[in-house]
Amino acid sequence: MTGRRSFRRTKEIRTPNDKGRDLKTEASGGMEKKEGMFQVACPAPIRERNEIVMAHGGGGRVMQQLIEGVFFKAFGNPLLAQAHDGTVIEAGGERLAFTTDSYVVRPLIFPGGDIGDLAVNGTVNDLAMCGARPLYLSAGFILEEGLSMDVLRRVVDSMRRAADKAGVRLVTGDTKVVDKGKGDGLYVNTAGIGLIKGTAAIHPREVRAGDAILINGDVGRHGMAVMAVREGLSFETTIESDTAPLAGLVGRLMAAGIGMHCLRDVTRGGLGAVLNEISSASGWQQQIDEALVPVAEEVHGACEILGLDPLYVACEGRFVAFVKDADADKALDIMKTDPVGAGAAIIGRVTAEKGALVTLRSRVGASRILDMLSGEQLPRIC
Amino acid sequence: MTGRRSFRRTKEIRTPNDKGRDLKTEASGGMEKKEGMFQVACPAPIRERNEIVMAHGGGGRVMQQLIEGVFFKAFGNPLLAQAHDGTVIEAGGERLAFTTDSYVVRPLIFPGGDIGDLAVNGTVNDLAMCGARPLYLSAGFILEEGLSMDVLRRVVDSMRRAADKAGVRLVTGDTKVVDKGKGDGLYVNTAGIGLIKGTAAIHPREVRAGDAILINGDVGRHGMAVMAVREGLSFETTIESDTAPLAGLVGRLMAAGIGMHCLRDVTRGGLGAVLNEISSASGWQQQIDEALVPVAEEVHGACEILGLDPLYVACEGRFVAFVKDADADKALDIMKTDPVGAGAAIIGRVTAEKGALVTLRSRVGASRILDMLSGEQLPRIC
Repeated sequence: MTGRRSFRRTKEIRTPNDKGRDLKTEASGGMEKKEGMFQVACPAPIRERNEIVMAHGGGGRVMQQLIEGVFFKAFGNPLLAQAHDGTVIEAGGERLAFTTDSYVVRPLIFPGGDIGDLAVNGTVNDLAMCGARPLYLSAGFILEEGLSMDVLRRVVDSMRRAADKAGVRLVTGDTKVVDKGKGDGLYVNTAGIGLIKGTAAIHPREVRAGDAILINGDVGRHGMAVMAVREGLSFETTIESDTAPLAGLVGRLMAAGIGMHCLRDVTRGGLGAVLNEISSASGWQQQIDEALVPVAEEVHGACEILGLDPLYVACEGRFVAFVKDADADKALDIMKTDPVGAGAAIIGRVTAEKGALVTLRSRVGASRILDMLSGEQLPRIC
Repeated sequence: MTGRRSFRRTKEIRTPNDKGRDLKTEASGGMEKKEGMFQVACPAPIRERNEIVMAHGGGGRVMQQLIEGVFFKAFGNPLLAQAHDGTVIEAGGERLAFTTDSYVVRPLIFPGGDIGDLAVNGTVNDLAMCGARPLYLSAGFILEEGLSMDVLRRVVDSMRRAADKAGVRLVTGDTKVVDKGKGDGLYVNTAGIGLIKGTAAIHPREVRAGDAILINGDVGRHGMAVMAVREGLSFETTIESDTAPLAGLVGRLMAAGIGMHCLRDVTRGGLGAVLNEISSASGWQQQIDEALVPVAEEVHGACEILGLDPLYVACEGRFVAFVKDADADKALDIMKTDPVGAGAAIIGRVTAEKGALVTLRSRVGASRILDMLSGEQLPRIC
């Protein structure tokens, strides 16, 4: 069962190939809420796999297992073990952020963006999440024989525009061509270097009890923009990807002296995965108020139809900021006056309890665990 | 016609899909030399293509056209236009080298190496060619659904060993999974950062008339090691890839104060492509003595059978150094005492004539142009 085939407007949602942990739920075309649809109180153990499955790229527990069991195990060093969006390195006398991401989104072009601006914004944002000012990008292209030159030109132009907007320069690159049937048009890797000024430490380990948790806008837009195209859904309003560079806003927050303890862009696995990762890495529990998490009406609608939970749908222009409680309102004000922060909100708090747990107070007042998914809801959305 | 199908032990060698410039040649099983077999005195014009062909990744003129016509055109900036193995950037007060390469070699494992050490050594070498000490690498994996976990572990272990050997640390990474049939097991991208000490400028534009051209060992080993596996050839001696890190030797040459004007690792397109690129970028002609270019007997034999010219076959542990004439013998001595330089040789000179031209004095005394190929001899060897 390929990832591609695993999402239909059917009544069964499975994490692809994850036979040990099928999540079944009733998807309906109506508008009633489906609380807790992805919650499994007692997760079945994830068995070791002897081959790669789509879930290994999904941002959930299966991917974590791969990263920790294979990559960290082999490469283990303190820098890699920072396990953040990027790594903070020293080169000569400077502190730099360094990060990489490959992009395999399907289709290459979707409402609101394409693989090109996604690849630039994604890496720019990973640098921003380290508190760095993005400076330089590299680009590695894997082109499939037969790719239309027009598509390539469009993607490359889109990269340039995104780089200009984010104030970074694309300074080195590489091109490889693979045989027809050994790629999917175009894959792009970008790596980035950013400069960290000052000594501010922005990392999950800096999270403190009582920190306010902010987000700069509504969630789930990017994932649903891609899925709507792939599944041929149309709505009154086209869902556009939220892909955007976040470094400008982060720079403004830093310049204003906001006490930011941790930043993380909300990508694969969505808000649910990101909050769980930070809770796990920081050792502090979090409480999120579902009614405060912004979700656009059309994204809600699309999620209903596909039987997905918007809290697990990827964004590409959203980030959570863990901010010193006293600075929360000021940070929110700054966000709201920024082009990429108009829909910002304070969505919850870090509690005073130790442990790796995110609880969600639902709209009807009940509390549930916002669990990390085993596999993925959406393959190849970035 | 896919690249995969384009190399058989047949009598016709074509640059795949390059219909405007088919190169036909008689391949024989015998041992007679085939001088000038890839030389076309009056190259047919390369027409613009509206889709990607294998030759766009081959290191020849078609690839140059793509890079200049699409990538440089869009991203044009002075740093990218350095058009070297990597780019020299400034971050804070430091001069850094920054480079990226994707690896799509097929098969993933070959005599003497695998895609893992290739991906580490390749990027380490690109940094070394900028005169930098390699410090940090990133790794981006694109895994195809169904890839054996054992193969992944082997490749990752091989990356770690290569990184240890080269003295670099793999500090940040990314994993994506694509559907079965949309990849070829495993593609890897590595980007690298190195630190440049001192003010030495190592670049094609620094090349001077009279410079000696050195190479650190025999050519063509990597490409033929890969092709021998792919084509099912066997020889008395297995041809092993020359994949190796070159930063140590480059560091020794620099420490000894050798006047090095330009360094370039001999990869896609082989010695022929690399020398032509440097001649073109430097504006000085070169004269190479074919009898002085080291080629192992088994590589010669394999090339004969496949109808290839070893001067256009890629290496992954060889580089050319353009050295101040007065320092040439000292540089050669240093190379010969290094583990990756035992087979070093002075193979030619930069002449006193302006222009982009490399001439080859053949073993029988005749001179011919060592042209740049249009497409490629060997698809997907790195």
